[in-house]
Amino acid sequence: MNKEQDLDVILLGRIAIDFNPIEIYCGLEDSQTFKKYLGGSPANIAVGLARLKQRVGFIGMISDDQFGKFVLHYFEKEGIDTSHIVKARHNENLGLTFTEIKSDSDSSILMYRNEAADLKLEVSDISEHYIQRAKYLVISGTALSQSPSREATLKALYIAKKYHIVVVFDIDYRSYTWNHHDELSIYYSIIAEKSDIIIGSKEEYDLMYALEGSNLTCNEIAKKAQASGSQLVVIKEGKDGSLVYSANEIYRVKPIPVKLLKSFGGGDAYASALIYGLLMKLPLADTLLLATASASMLVSSHSCSADMPTIEQLEQFIQEKLKTMNADNIVWSL
Amino acid sequence: MNKEQDLDVILLGRIAIDFNPIEIYCGLEDSQTFKKYLGGSPANIAVGLARLKQRVGFIGMISDDQFGKFVLHYFEKEGIDTSHIVKARHNENLGLTFTEIKSDSDSSILMYRNEAADLKLEVSDISEHYIQRAKYLVISGTALSQSPSREATLKALYIAKKYHIVVVFDIDYRSYTWNHHDELSIYYSIIAEKSDIIIGSKEEYDLMYALEGSNLTCNEIAKKAQASGSQLVVIKEGKDGSLVYSANEIYRVKPIPVKLLKSFGGGDAYASALIYGLLMKLPLADTLLLATASASMLVSSHSCSADMPTIEQLEQFIQEKLKTMNADNIVWSL
Amino acid sequence: MNKEQDLDVILLGRIAIDFNPIEIYCGLEDSQTFKKYLGGSPANIAVGLARLKQRVGFIGMISDDQFGKFVLHYFEKEGIDTSHIVKARHNENLGLTFTEIKSDSDSSILMYRNEAADLKLEVSDISEHYIQRAKYLVISGTALSQSPSREATLKALYIAKKYHIVVVFDIDYRSYTWNHHDELSIYYSIIAEKSDIIIGSKEEYDLMYALEGSNLTCNEIAKKAQASGSQLVVIKEGKDGSLVYSANEIYRVKPIPVKLLKSFGGGDAYASALIYGLLMKLPLADTLLLATASASMLVSSHSCSADMPTIEQLEQFIQEKLKTMNADNIVWSL
Amino acid sequence: MNKEQDLDVILLGRIAIDFNPIEIYCGLEDSQTFKKYLGGSPANIAVGLARLKQRVGFIGMISDDQFGKFVLHYFEKEGIDTSHIVKARHNENLGLTFTEIKSDSDSSILMYRNEAADLKLEVSDISEHYIQRAKYLVISGTALSQSPSREATLKALYIAKKYHIVVVFDIDYRSYTWNHHDELSIYYSIIAEKSDIIIGSKEEYDLMYALEGSNLTCNEIAKKAQASGSQLVVIKEGKDGSLVYSANEIYRVKPIPVKLLKSFGGGDAYASALIYGLLMKLPLADTLLLATASASMLVSSHSCSADMPTIEQLEQFIQEKLKTMNADNIVWSL
Repeated sequence: MNKEQDLDVILLGRIAIDFNPIEIYCGLEDSQTFKKYLGGSPANIAVGLARLKQRVGFIGMISDDQFGKFVLHYFEKEGIDTSHIVKARHNENLGLTFTEIKSDSDSSILMYRNEAADLKLEVSDISEHYIQRAKYLVISGTALSQSPSREATLKALYIAKKYHIVVVFDIDYRSYTWNHHDELSIYYSIIAEKSDIIIGSKEEYDLMYALEGSNLTCNEIAKKAQASGSQLVVIKEGKDGSLVYSANEIYRVKPIPVKLLKSFGGGDAYASALIYGLLMKLPLADTLLLATASASMLVSSHSCSADMPTIEQLEQFIQEKLKTMNADNIVWSL
Repeated sequence: MNKEQDLDVILLGRIAIDFNPIEIYCGLEDSQTFKKYLGGSPANIAVGLARLKQRVGFIGMISDDQFGKFVLHYFEKEGIDTSHIVKARHNENLGLTFTEIKSDSDSSILMYRNEAADLKLEVSDISEHYIQRAKYLVISGTALSQSPSREATLKALYIAKKYHIVVVFDIDYRSYTWNHHDELSIYYSIIAEKSDIIIGSKEEYDLMYALEGSNLTCNEIAKKAQASGSQLVVIKEGKDGSLVYSANEIYRVKPIPVKLLKSFGGGDAYASALIYGLLMKLPLADTLLLATASASMLVSSHSCSADMPTIEQLEQFIQEKLKTMNADNIVWSL
Repeated sequence: MNKEQDLDVILLGRIAIDFNPIEIYCGLEDSQTFKKYLGGSPANIAVGLARLKQRVGFIGMISDDQFGKFVLHYFEKEGIDTSHIVKARHNENLGLTFTEIKSDSDSSILMYRNEAADLKLEVSDISEHYIQRAKYLVISGTALSQSPSREATLKALYIAKKYHIVVVFDIDYRSYTWNHHDELSIYYSIIAEKSDIIIGSKEEYDLMYALEGSNLTCNEIAKKAQASGSQLVVIKEGKDGSLVYSANEIYRVKPIPVKLLKSFGGGDAYASALIYGLLMKLPLADTLLLATASASMLVSSHSCSADMPTIEQLEQFIQEKLKTMNADNIVWSL
Repeated sequence: MNKEQDLDVILLGRIAIDFNPIEIYCGLEDSQTFKKYLGGSPANIAVGLARLKQRVGFIGMISDDQFGKFVLHYFEKEGIDTSHIVKARHNENLGLTFTEIKSDSDSSILMYRNEAADLKLEVSDISEHYIQRAKYLVISGTALSQSPSREATLKALYIAKKYHIVVVFDIDYRSYTWNHHDELSIYYSIIAEKSDIIIGSKEEYDLMYALEGSNLTCNEIAKKAQASGSQLVVIKEGKDGSLVYSANEIYRVKPIPVKLLKSFGGGDAYASALIYGLLMKLPLADTLLLATASASMLVSSHSCSADMPTIEQLEQFIQEKLKTMNADNIVWSL
């Protein structure tokens, strides 16, 4: 290990505030009371990794107001390094996500993303020295959706490659942030070609490879990604779980049944446990069991960040579940 | 009366959503739960007037989402005509106001105003026929802060003058929306010169007349406004109450003591009761008593819209207060 | 006279560069060689007034490049005060006008106006002290078409009114600079209501008064303008010449026949001679004869600025023309 | 050959208008007469290739006005396919370049690039079918400087790679179009990694590789470019000529002495003759002789496009020069 690598993982991208209604299972227009949570996919994963005792850093932009202060306090409390989270320069706000939970399977969101701070990150905010300090760099695809955040992200990628830092690409597609499908195909491809690990849904891979051909099967997707050098390709298929391609093996991962509260948040929990397992060099099957367990825990809770489990909570949850089901029915090699 | 005048008053300007913390008397970063209310000064005044049984219309722009739907439902429930509230054309959001109530006298706000829908109102959204239907047009000064809302407001003003509709100008200065002090002096002056009634704080009048000279006394302010044709000039002086200049008389109006919850919202209540009294052709002293009473009721309640009083509530509040104090110590002619 | 009034007239607005083809009477795409001239209506009028020995100042913004330097040199050579011409702050360019002269009556233009420097003039560029130094302020209507130049112009207007400086409004409508017809009606009206002298074509007055009613006759236009305080109303009717309304009289002014080279530039010459006559307190009929003579001289020359006549050239031209026609057939009182 | 490949080369990027002063050797502010030429580096190269009898297509955006019409007529007259040159959708203008020729070695330019049409090219303007028709795709680096042209260029690149079309990257750095040096390093690198042929000056390569390390020698630059797959790397060193690296050989190419008129335009001539030689599969040394000869012819003429030589003119020029100098002193293998 490079002795400068005093961080396990640095994440780059969006930090937001989630407002989740207390009066759930009704339209958002009728919700009257809201709870405020830290949100944004890479921010959630950062919290997840910190709870799993990894040394976590973050590159991002926050608002220069009370909500920005809330984020900093929150991250500091979780032990996340905030030295490279910069403040908005032109009164940009943090993005907001008001969630509408109509039923356990019908959730939607109302976004405040106009002039959002996270997309104003600039190339000059990216420090070569900071990135060198990490073993892993996690790039969130929404950071690519607009300039100047797009170029800041590409700069971070180039620096990571220069120092042979493991690059994780979490595609995290959000339809409202992109101008044209071709643009996301282009930028997703540029990142994917240089990523060691890619995490996305089948639909996200289809969008990524749309310029080069379409209607790819999961196997074809994995082959394409591996051809340009990716070591691990995770393809999520919603309620069917996920397919995970390593160099030599393919795993099928099933969700662990729980009482659903909401239909989102699971992906971020999955990603944080997956990256944890990789950093800890756990066997891949064990890593994937942690990942799917963490996802199940999150979709049965009210928040996406505050409810991220510790390793003890994860293990206890798995132990509990394994009383009634077999691990081989959750994760198995094809 | 023009037989087409089936509306008492039309208001033009900002509609917003207020998120008021349930955990008050702490910094906003530490507030965890928020109640959602209709907000925005002219929207609050509209609700106030509707509760006072006036026939109210509104010209404004809302978001094309669940929050916009919330506004429409709310207005409709209050009996406010929403036929000329248009939907945002380019995914603009409703403005949000997160209030921070640190003590009964120390409140501040965190605004979400980037690409706010209300400032996107266009001249083509202003209907000559609609404005003709009202006796009064109330213009909120924040609508002047940016184009194209600025020009839409000026168009409404010109139409109102053409049909001899009474123009009320509520200066409603917000520092964060203007580029340069000279710009607000210019536009406030353009509106004030054509307004029959002007409502503002001493500071707001100072800003308005800054280009033409400074350090005006209240009497000089009133004289200037009357010289260009205003019939009624209301100058608010915070805790000292207000000075009200009609053509022949000057009134001093004092606040009615209450237990304060927050230091904002009173102005909108004041304005709605004032316009109510004018529309009902009540004696000016009686009108001003209603206005100051309504203001006091609001600053002791949690919201700026939902707590607007009915005439019965207002009268009951006044009656209660008059048990221990004399009306002549609240409103008197100088 | 205020002893500080060491300038006869200050003009505010657009300075541009004209490129007039040497190969005329063909489409612009086929013109290969171009001559560069100073252009922009108020800049042309400034040169015209300087040639008529008036003390001229200018408020405007130029590019920070060789073309801006060209403008400064040109103005200085003509004796125009350039102390309040500011340089563009964000690499804006001077507007360009490529003229296409297909025949003596069929001219058109290709404009370069994207991010033009003149429309970036700001309120902070307007000096109260400078405007005080002039007897007349000439406002060009194109300066109203976009912010922040719009507000800078309104600020200059308010300052001029404060010091009782004569305001001349040259409507100078250009279709490509405005977002919506209602907007120009609004801003033209705001300026016109405070102007002592208005110069415009019949079509321009129709646009100005469109919000308030339409299909006005010239007499009705003049009456409206006089009602809000204008002392002199000039209505141009193209080849039919112009109608000029003073407080007591109406004049018909005919063009003086010349061999046309191009169909533009005459208006600026007319305006400069008109303002000259007013400043010199010449009889109105004599002033108008100079104005129409100057217009005729310009439309028979290649440029709009470089060919502005001196008083000697004007008088010689008139003397020559009066050998074959009667002055009473050029300008007469109705 | 793919039977659909009915075009030898398609160029993508900027088309502009050059205005070159007739009064040279003075400051631009003093130049009075200008000649209009087609300009823009890829447009010049397109003309150069057409004169060398190649079948040329172009992807770009022009203004919807007389200057746009001039471009189309010019290209059509030269036999260049204009079927994929689109018209500006929002009144953007063609970029303009006013050249200032102070001496034979001191030239500078004044650019009109605000809202230039060429940078508004969109991904939807890029046709997969059109690019398939060419053997070579030439990408000009200025097209990468801003969105949406940036993404349109990347899309063209991905399509070219999909169909194994030879990609030529002409770096063509212009300082005024980029926000930050890191951004150009990023985008130049993305293109270079997928290019078969790269043409640039030493300074341009330094900018390209700045993120990855600095102070590279020419040999190191070539090695880096070859490592990511480039077959031919041309490094221009101004008056010293150029170094050209193929897979197996390195050539030194010297300029052929001529009487200089201006210090620009030579690069485009060089590129067109180089691409011509490659398309014709001429020996590399012969190709480079044509390239340097073409460059010399251009810097001694008034325009950058109109003076592009035919093959007969090139050969005659070389023959003439070889009377007094040896070919081996112009191009030689190291």
